[in-house]
Order: sequence, then structure tokens, then C-alpha cells
Amino acid sequence: VAGLAAARAWRVLGWAHSKETVAGINAHHVNPRYLTSYTLPANVTATTSLDEAARAVVEQLGDVAVILATPSSYVRTLTTEFCEALERALSQVDLAGGTLSQAANAKVFPGNVSGSEGSVPAVPTLVLSKGIEPGSGLLMTQVVEDASAAAACPVPLAVAALSGPNHAEEVCKGLPAAAVVATASDAAATAFTSLLLSPEFRVYTTGDLVGVEVPAALKNVIAIACGVAAGLGYGDNTLAVLMTRGLAEMCRLAVALGASPLTCMGLAGMGDLVATCTSEHSRNRTFGEALAAGESLSSYEARTHMVVEGARAAVSALEVAARVGVELPVTQAVAALLRGEALAPTIQALIERPPSQEFYGISQGTSGPVVH
Amino acid sequence: VAGLAAARAWRVLGWAHSKETVAGINAHHVNPRYLTSYTLPANVTATTSLDEAARAVVEQLGDVAVILATPSSYVRTLTTEFCEALERALSQVDLAGGTLSQAANAKVFPGNVSGSEGSVPAVPTLVLSKGIEPGSGLLMTQVVEDASAAAACPVPLAVAALSGPNHAEEVCKGLPAAAVVATASDAAATAFTSLLLSPEFRVYTTGDLVGVEVPAALKNVIAIACGVAAGLGYGDNTLAVLMTRGLAEMCRLAVALGASPLTCMGLAGMGDLVATCTSEHSRNRTFGEALAAGESLSSYEARTHMVVEGARAAVSALEVAARVGVELPVTQAVAALLRGEALAPTIQALIERPPSQEFYGISQGTSGPVVH
Repeated sequence: VAGLAAARAWRVLGWAHSKETVAGINAHHVNPRYLTSYTLPANVTATTSLDEAARAVVEQLGDVAVILATPSSYVRTLTTEFCEALERALSQVDLAGGTLSQAANAKVFPGNVSGSEGSVPAVPTLVLSKGIEPGSGLLMTQVVEDASAAAACPVPLAVAALSGPNHAEEVCKGLPAAAVVATASDAAATAFTSLLLSPEFRVYTTGDLVGVEVPAALKNVIAIACGVAAGLGYGDNTLAVLMTRGLAEMCRLAVALGASPLTCMGLAGMGDLVATCTSEHSRNRTFGEALAAGESLSSYEARTHMVVEGARAAVSALEVAARVGVELPVTQAVAALLRGEALAPTIQALIERPPSQEFYGISQGTSGPVVH
Repeated sequence: VAGLAAARAWRVLGWAHSKETVAGINAHHVNPRYLTSYTLPANVTATTSLDEAARAVVEQLGDVAVILATPSSYVRTLTTEFCEALERALSQVDLAGGTLSQAANAKVFPGNVSGSEGSVPAVPTLVLSKGIEPGSGLLMTQVVEDASAAAACPVPLAVAALSGPNHAEEVCKGLPAAAVVATASDAAATAFTSLLLSPEFRVYTTGDLVGVEVPAALKNVIAIACGVAAGLGYGDNTLAVLMTRGLAEMCRLAVALGASPLTCMGLAGMGDLVATCTSEHSRNRTFGEALAAGESLSSYEARTHMVVEGARAAVSALEVAARVGVELPVTQAVAALLRGEALAPTIQALIERPPSQEFYGISQGTSGPVVH
């Protein structure tokens, strides 16, 4: 995403915890951990200082956007720390005698979501992290909103989620891909569409955040299941069934939480699911294959330096599903395998579930009763 | 399907035009043309005589089902000829002094769809052919109904369509798969569910024939497009976008013809599409790869002895789409390539179409307007 934005002449300042990553980007225009063969544009720089990043945001208020791309388990902490850094930055910024809102509203960037003069313009904030927070059951944009409210963030964040079939490896090569920006903020929709859209990268927008974020979290669980099935030698039919029934269960949960079922059918639902489940680039699918071969989660993560988001998402999705009374059979099977239950009986139990109506929990009356 | 039915102790009599196929099945329990490594159960026999097949149906009326699995272009002719053969068979059958309906209604099989005494029970007829008839725009079960009505078929046919992620190659090996039986007839639903259902083969039913048959016809077109993209070196993102936008366009057409959009999301829509587009077994996808490498349709079909159904479906789908005012951009691109238009500009034009609402033509109001 940094590369896409920089290619559209945005100046990009990245924050990362790792000194090695920051040094690699500044010295060689390469992230030394991931996508090592991709050279970042020269207008991408990085810092390990959250204060420096916050200062850049405050200085460009009204003409700046934030992109959050940490593993899901750091989203709350990082949001809190970012808001605290914004507070510190605000105490240092030179407002030339005016107020912050006057300085910001003088700019032309449509980041002023409130539209009312005198208020601080919200910063469009794109949340790339996918997952469901354990305990709270919140989706990632909700975690950002919740954490920034708790921290009394001095600058409002206009959150958006990005999802779709867009493996970074291929986007970097300019291969055609597409994505959906989900946000309730027109300003964030405008900002991130103009930031991302190109002939090779189609961008659709929607107001249905839940319909985008629930599948984004659960697709990693289904990808683990597909990896297990592939690892056990099952064929394309079985994988297609897993993806389809997987889409049905993520859609049941999304609808129960307020989404439109159609969103599941689109690029952020089906599109991302198919790309993730069929791709060699998916760490979740690759982990599923390792799981089928007997490797544990901790061993896999230590070996690859990758976080298997689907493993966390499976547990927290089941918590939420139990609360709203939705069944997630594929997710249940993945969670059972992660707890160390035996492969063969878990898979067998999943396969032998009696078929019910294909779309139960999504809509009534479109599928007739099944006759045994 | 013959193998699945035979495995459930049905006696199966296959009709085929090819003497070689029939001889292979009767002498060696193998179809010498396709799936040559699969041995059919001993209770599967075959004949080249449509009269023999029709006689078997008439003799077992009330306890028999018909499965039609020809290429789509033969469905009308074969249905007409089958009805004529049924007429001849009826003139020869020994009704033991009673009427045909009395003989049939004495049996216990739930094939008596009319339920009324004295009428001839309908024969559950499973149509495996996929496509849209050129000119008429009829789907395959509609072609069977139309042709049997035109032939004044002496035995009513209760049509059903079968679709889903079920490549024969893998089903024969007992790998888990799933399918949807679409029919307006309870008797046909019961007959074909009991005929097909097993722990490895999940069967769902629906009354939405259009929602099953339109995607079944169009998935082959999208598979050609995916083959072209794969042949040109595009990655998983691009294939996932093609499948997702392909599903959207087949769903737009299905909905315009009366289907429920949810059916497209299920095994017969998304499931079959994903299996077809990702599988090495799909002749349509393989043809797309050949097309990208410069081979023509006629050369490919001559070389492989396979009918590329998607090539016909593209043309007839566009006829129907024009009639009901639905856009099918992927299908249009495939049709252009089949007409011999150059690859690069056709693909470029498809990729560079401005994004519109993701679900236009399927539902209003779920996707916000796109901001450029």
C-alpha cells in the first residue's frame, strides 16, 4: 500500500517497531523482512519513533491519511499509543497564532469529514489488520474507534477497512487486482480510493464495514482448513466445497452482526477468500498444510516469523458466534485441530454433518428442504 | 453419476451413440473415452439402442429415473427422439390387461409426481447438460420440457438439474464433493437425493432452477477467461477477481431471469465456479490457456475430442443478456477472443473498465457509490 500511495506522488512515512526494518527502508528502499525483492519508491521513508509519525500527521492535518497494518493483536495498543503521541505532537506544533482547526481547515484536502468550521478535521485511517478481538468480539475498525475514544484522541480518526483479492506479492508486480474500501466516511472513501485506484488496481467502496471485516477475519480460518485438506490429498472439489461452505458460515456470522449478505459475495468476501485459499502466498493455507503434516502453531510461527492470523480469529470468532447463536462448523473443526485434536475424526465429523438448507441463517425460503 | 447410482444398488442402463463406448462398458466396465481408469460397477450396462432404453423405462415406470448427460447441443434432438422411442415402447409393453397408469401406480417408488390415480407417473429426469440454447435462450431443463411438450411425450418428465463442485475424476475416487439438485418436483428431489447422497457426496436441494442453471452455463465461460489469464501469466489475485466479477455477472443474468441472488453464492454458483476455474480437470480452463497460446477452438476440440461448452455458452448468454438488458463484460471479452480479436487489447479493455457499484443489477443499496 505504501508503494501504491507513493507511486501516486504521496509522501509516505512508515512507522515500524523493528529498527532493522526501518534501517532497510531508509538505506536500501527495501523491507528486509517481507517482499524483499520489491524496491519501494524513493518517497517512502520510515521511523521507529511514533512521535515523529504523529508530528507528521499533525503538521499535515487536513492533507494526510493514516494506514494501520500491524498484526491484529497490536491494534488496540498501537492506537492508544498513537493517540498519546498525537497529544504530545499537538503541544509542540506551531499554529501560527491560530487554532489547530483553523490551520487544518485552510487546506484543500477533503479530510474534513465533519464539514463544520472550527472542528478538528478527522484523519482518514485505513485499517489493514484483520481479525476479531478476543473478549470484546470487536472488529479491527471497531477496536481503533474504541481505543481512540478511550484515549480521548485529540484528532478524530475516520476509519476504513480495505479488503479484497490483493496479495501484496502480486500487487507489487503490477498484476491486476481489486479491493473494496469499507467506511462510513465519505472523506475516507474519497481519500483511499484516490490513493489506491489505478488501471491495475480496481477499487470499489461500500458502507458495509461488518460485511467486509467479518469475512476478512474468517477467510484466514477457512484458508487453514483448505491447507489441511490439500495436505491430506483432497482435490479441487473438496477445496471448492470448503470455500463455499466457509463463505456461507462467515456470511451467517456477518449477517447476524448486521451485514448485507451480498457483501459476502463480492471481492471482499468471495474474492479475497478464493485468492487466499488457492494461493501459495497465503501463510494461513501454508500453515494448514504444515498442520496436516503434524507441525504445531508455535513451531510454524517460530520457523517462518509469520503470525497465523487465522489461528487467533478461529477462537475469537467462535466466542462471538456463540454469543449471537450462529454455527461455524468449519471454524469449529479448525479450532479443534489447533487444540490438538486428532485430524482424521475431526475431518470425518465435518464431512459427515447432515446437509441442512444451504443458506440457513442467511435467508429464508431460497433453498428447499433437504430430503434424505 | 452412473457409478454413484449403481453403488446404491440401482440397476443402470446407459445409452450412448458410440458403439465403442457401449462395447467398452459392457465388455470391460470402462468408458473407453473418458475417465478410463475408473471401473464401473457390474450393474452398469449400456446400449446404443434408444428403443431398448425407452423400453426399460416403460417397463419400470413408477420405479425408474432418467439421467441426461449429452453435450448441450444434442439435448433437444435427444429428448425428441427419446419421446418417440417411449411412444414405440408403450405400444409393445404388456400391461396385463390394465392401463399404463394402473400398472405404474401399483408400484411403491415415489415417482408418481402427479399423485392422482389414473394418470401416468412422471419420470424423474436429471439433466446434467449445461448451457443456454442458441436462438431460444432456453436453459437445459427448459429445452427438455419444451422438446417433450412439442413431441407430446407419452410419459411426463419431471426435470431436475444437478450442479456443484463435482469433477467426475475426483468423485470417482471417493474424494468429498457436494452438489445441488434443482427441481420443482418433490418426487424428483427425493429420487435424486437418495440416488446420490453419501458421506462423501453431500446433496442440497433447491427449487431455484434458473439460479442453478444460469451459473452452470456461464461458469464455463469464466473458466475460459481464467485459463486465458493464467496462460498470460497473471496471478491468483487476477484469477480471484475474474471469478468474483464473473459470479457477479452470472448472478445479474440469473436474477434478471427470475433467480434468487443467494443461489449464486452457493455450491451450484460459487462452488462450481471455483472448482471449475481452479482445476486442472476443467477442459474450459485448459482451452483458455490454449487460446492464450494462440490455438483456435476448432483445433483444440479436434485435438482433445472434447466439446468446449463455454464457447457456445458465451454466444447464447450474450443473446439472452441483450434481450433482458444485462451487461456481461467478462463473457463479452471471451466472445471477442473466440471471434479472433487480439488478446492484448481485449484484456486491457476489460481491466480498464471503470469500476461501478459492485452489485449493480443484483441489488440496490448495499454498495455505496464509487468515488474516482
